[in-house]
Amino acid sequence: MAKKSKKKAEKLKIIPLGGMHEIGKNLTVFEYGEDIIIVDCGMAFPDDEMLGIDVVIPDVSYLVKNIEKIRGIVLTHGHEDHIGALPYFLRDINVPVFGTKLTLGIVKNKLNEHGMGKTTELMTVSAGEKLELGCFTIEFIRSNHSIPDPLMLAITTPAGTVIHTGDFKIDPTPIQSEMIDLARLGELGKKGVLLLMSDSTNACRPGISMSESRVGDSFENIFKNAGEKRIIVATFSSNVHRIQQIIDAAARHGRKVAISGRSMVNITNVSMELGYMDVPEGIIIDIDSANRMPDSKVVIVTTGSQGEPMSALYRMAFSDHKKLEAGPNDLIVISASPIPGNEKMVSRVVNALMRSGAEVMYEALNDIHASGHACQEEQKIILALTKPQFFMPVHGEYLHLKKHASLAKAVGVAQENIFILENGNMLEINEDGAKINGKVQSGRVLVDGLGVGDVSGVVLRDRKHLAQDGLIVIVATIDSSDNSIIAGPEVVSRGFVYMREAEDLMEHVRMTAKQALTICAEKNMTEWNAIKSTVKSAVSDLLYTKTKRSPMILTVITEI
Amino acid sequence: MAKKSKKKAEKLKIIPLGGMHEIGKNLTVFEYGEDIIIVDCGMAFPDDEMLGIDVVIPDVSYLVKNIEKIRGIVLTHGHEDHIGALPYFLRDINVPVFGTKLTLGIVKNKLNEHGMGKTTELMTVSAGEKLELGCFTIEFIRSNHSIPDPLMLAITTPAGTVIHTGDFKIDPTPIQSEMIDLARLGELGKKGVLLLMSDSTNACRPGISMSESRVGDSFENIFKNAGEKRIIVATFSSNVHRIQQIIDAAARHGRKVAISGRSMVNITNVSMELGYMDVPEGIIIDIDSANRMPDSKVVIVTTGSQGEPMSALYRMAFSDHKKLEAGPNDLIVISASPIPGNEKMVSRVVNALMRSGAEVMYEALNDIHASGHACQEEQKIILALTKPQFFMPVHGEYLHLKKHASLAKAVGVAQENIFILENGNMLEINEDGAKINGKVQSGRVLVDGLGVGDVSGVVLRDRKHLAQDGLIVIVATIDSSDNSIIAGPEVVSRGFVYMREAEDLMEHVRMTAKQALTICAEKNMTEWNAIKSTVKSAVSDLLYTKTKRSPMILTVITEI
Repeated sequence: MAKKSKKKAEKLKIIPLGGMHEIGKNLTVFEYGEDIIIVDCGMAFPDDEMLGIDVVIPDVSYLVKNIEKIRGIVLTHGHEDHIGALPYFLRDINVPVFGTKLTLGIVKNKLNEHGMGKTTELMTVSAGEKLELGCFTIEFIRSNHSIPDPLMLAITTPAGTVIHTGDFKIDPTPIQSEMIDLARLGELGKKGVLLLMSDSTNACRPGISMSESRVGDSFENIFKNAGEKRIIVATFSSNVHRIQQIIDAAARHGRKVAISGRSMVNITNVSMELGYMDVPEGIIIDIDSANRMPDSKVVIVTTGSQGEPMSALYRMAFSDHKKLEAGPNDLIVISASPIPGNEKMVSRVVNALMRSGAEVMYEALNDIHASGHACQEEQKIILALTKPQFFMPVHGEYLHLKKHASLAKAVGVAQENIFILENGNMLEINEDGAKINGKVQSGRVLVDGLGVGDVSGVVLRDRKHLAQDGLIVIVATIDSSDNSIIAGPEVVSRGFVYMREAEDLMEHVRMTAKQALTICAEKNMTEWNAIKSTVKSAVSDLLYTKTKRSPMILTVITEI
Repeated sequence: MAKKSKKKAEKLKIIPLGGMHEIGKNLTVFEYGEDIIIVDCGMAFPDDEMLGIDVVIPDVSYLVKNIEKIRGIVLTHGHEDHIGALPYFLRDINVPVFGTKLTLGIVKNKLNEHGMGKTTELMTVSAGEKLELGCFTIEFIRSNHSIPDPLMLAITTPAGTVIHTGDFKIDPTPIQSEMIDLARLGELGKKGVLLLMSDSTNACRPGISMSESRVGDSFENIFKNAGEKRIIVATFSSNVHRIQQIIDAAARHGRKVAISGRSMVNITNVSMELGYMDVPEGIIIDIDSANRMPDSKVVIVTTGSQGEPMSALYRMAFSDHKKLEAGPNDLIVISASPIPGNEKMVSRVVNALMRSGAEVMYEALNDIHASGHACQEEQKIILALTKPQFFMPVHGEYLHLKKHASLAKAVGVAQENIFILENGNMLEINEDGAKINGKVQSGRVLVDGLGVGDVSGVVLRDRKHLAQDGLIVIVATIDSSDNSIIAGPEVVSRGFVYMREAEDLMEHVRMTAKQALTICAEKNMTEWNAIKSTVKSAVSDLLYTKTKRSPMILTVITEI
């Protein structure tokens, strides 16, 4: 009896460890009693402040502590912000991973690159199926997004059913797939949905998102009017349907297709192997063959739609690609929108491509890109179909979450039943109510090369300081008996001024350091740190007066 | 006779030393025979690659060489990208500066900050006036822009008349001023314009730009519905008419106005002193007074519309402002568009403001900002009115210049008479023809603190390297007789790993360096550089293997 009432009091706990107040590193924990499942395991790109950082992943200390409860990771789709942290995560927490065929194909590639292909249990699931993990039953629902085979999840728990949309849009005319299963969402809504967690990315955009097939119509027009020109299309490598549409247009217009860029080649290969693309025999050729054909018979599909400095398109623009160079006979289509923060990089590449004489289509006006995320009217449709008791906007910056919350209110969710969480917040919920109950350890872990988490705030502050004003190293050897200078001080600088042109200044620094050291010796100072800081402060004052700059000053004193 | 025919062969030379293929550092040289005039003298902001750089200015070596020809600098308006390089320029080339009252008021402030207020000859001019400088007659034409009193220039030279638009839009309902003098442009067009040089900033935007007064209508609505809330408006400090409209709305709705942010205070003061603003007695109050009043009686006008980390709005958002903090009773209006590259900074501030509970209006949809630059239809009107024989798009990235060139062609300028120049290109022109005749020295000079031009490519590469992976300093003292190690090697690192948590690795580095030095001694290596590079390469290999990072490695060896 006591046990039962305890069970009744048990609540579902939902803890986003990433993806809140940000676009990136999506990872959500569902915990009930002794069971945990994890939805997605993504990475984020470093922001401008995180100098030298390669990748940002969520802090999963909470999961490490509760490792014995974890029943598995369920992936909604194969984008980096949903799968990118897996290689780091699985090293510490090796649990089974569930996803559709394509998602796992991409994951497998990634794990192989990290030498972890054989140690992970990957389990394929499909829309329409159900999966039991501990006390959770997860139903996979067909969805639409800018990568094939995305899933929505209906997670039935003892506390009720939660719908997690993953990333989605409503596309009535998707490519090689069917529209999102709205009917099933409606059925679930009628049965009763405890909580809806829904993609907020485009919550500030009114209306509905453009169908992927409209991009195909635009390609048809572009190919029809391309004449003798070579066509180059840059897009996201994971947008398999976009690439399919380019191939389709190429086939109709008698052009061959060459793929450029490592990730583009990888994902296209995986997609073809797994049957996600329908590629006419012989249409894909290598770049060398393409270069031997007339321009009018060729399409190049390439990475670099975000202006990334190492990408194939960037190299074509700046004459740094081994095999391809943009020129006056090229029609270049950038079939993507700049991700916020990349606008300048994209326009740098567009300018360079145009200077080569190429025609470049990049404006939103041309209908050459469709977002993969639902806009306001689509978000409202999902809210209206599922009629959730509680609502939690996910996958967005605060401004997106806030807007999405206001849409939920407009559709009829009670204000007090809408929860905007921060990463690490724990929502405790059952039919009787929901509340945010504190915060577990969470945050971001920075990956730099092989180092995971070893670059901290101190290191980043130093990098920023070095980046701003460079450094001065002062080296002296002193006699330990009387602190007199035996050799030096020597002065080395990097990133401060061009030393050859600043010999006077450097000599001035040397003399100032020498003087400071002499004074320290005369005062019989013996504390290393005091001596170093005397030298540092003398040199720092000199440099600020002379240059109004504050380079990092490192003093190394060797004692003999 | 010979002299006359020589004169006839003489051509006008136009050399943009900045402003081409970029938005920023506008400076154009007009040279005819023994006379040079300069139009504008602007700065640019550093791009992401220019770590630690404060300001970028044009390389004016060409003008230093031809200093005796220079008759003066004519300023079109008071924006930084048109006047910001003056303090650096005038140090080397002290010539008279001409501009409208407000432009010179802003310039004077700037020169005072650089301690140069008294050494510069500033000459006020007005729209409608003419000025003779050498063989040039410059007619000033009233224009519209996002700062009061902008000028278009009609420069009559022995080779013909050149119209330089400066930055402009066509605003039939501007604030406290009249519409751009289209009639005069038309008259000049009828007389014959040799060359039009026209603002290309918005060449990719169809239609016409929004009138500044429509922003006033939006403010009226916002103020009407603000209720008990405090209103905070962030905008560009130089947009005096915008600030005027905020003050007008405040006056109508019984609110007082407090100004926040150094540049906002400066420019508002200059504008009021010079009669560019119409400010009701007592409406401007200081922030302390504002804080003592009810929120419903207050408007704060502030800098920070670009999300700049040191700005007043940023500080309000992140609770770092001494006197102001955003909160639930604030209605915050960001009356500006993000300048390309600033999108992420702006959304960071918007998110933080919203998290404080404030209502934030920032979307373009709200008509709370009007661009100061002409869109396509306005650009075509200027082309059609002036009917230039030759056309040169100016003030834009390549994609803007290219688009503007195509508009000129559409309006009837012959393709071969349209010239897209690069910075440094010299256009030689008279009625008989025009051609680009080579390039003079040009480019960008980086200002870092007091250093002008002392930060070069090498220094920037070092900063980038340091920013990416930090540095390791290895210091050793060796015996000059046999190269044996007397002391060290010591290892110091910054921006690489947090040293306290990487003691093993640092010890490994030390041992590796020691081993390398010992080998050098055994091999009797005496070349310093060879020894250093042996050490460096051993340590570098070790670190790359262990961490997949490549910090900068500095080896300092002291000989005794």
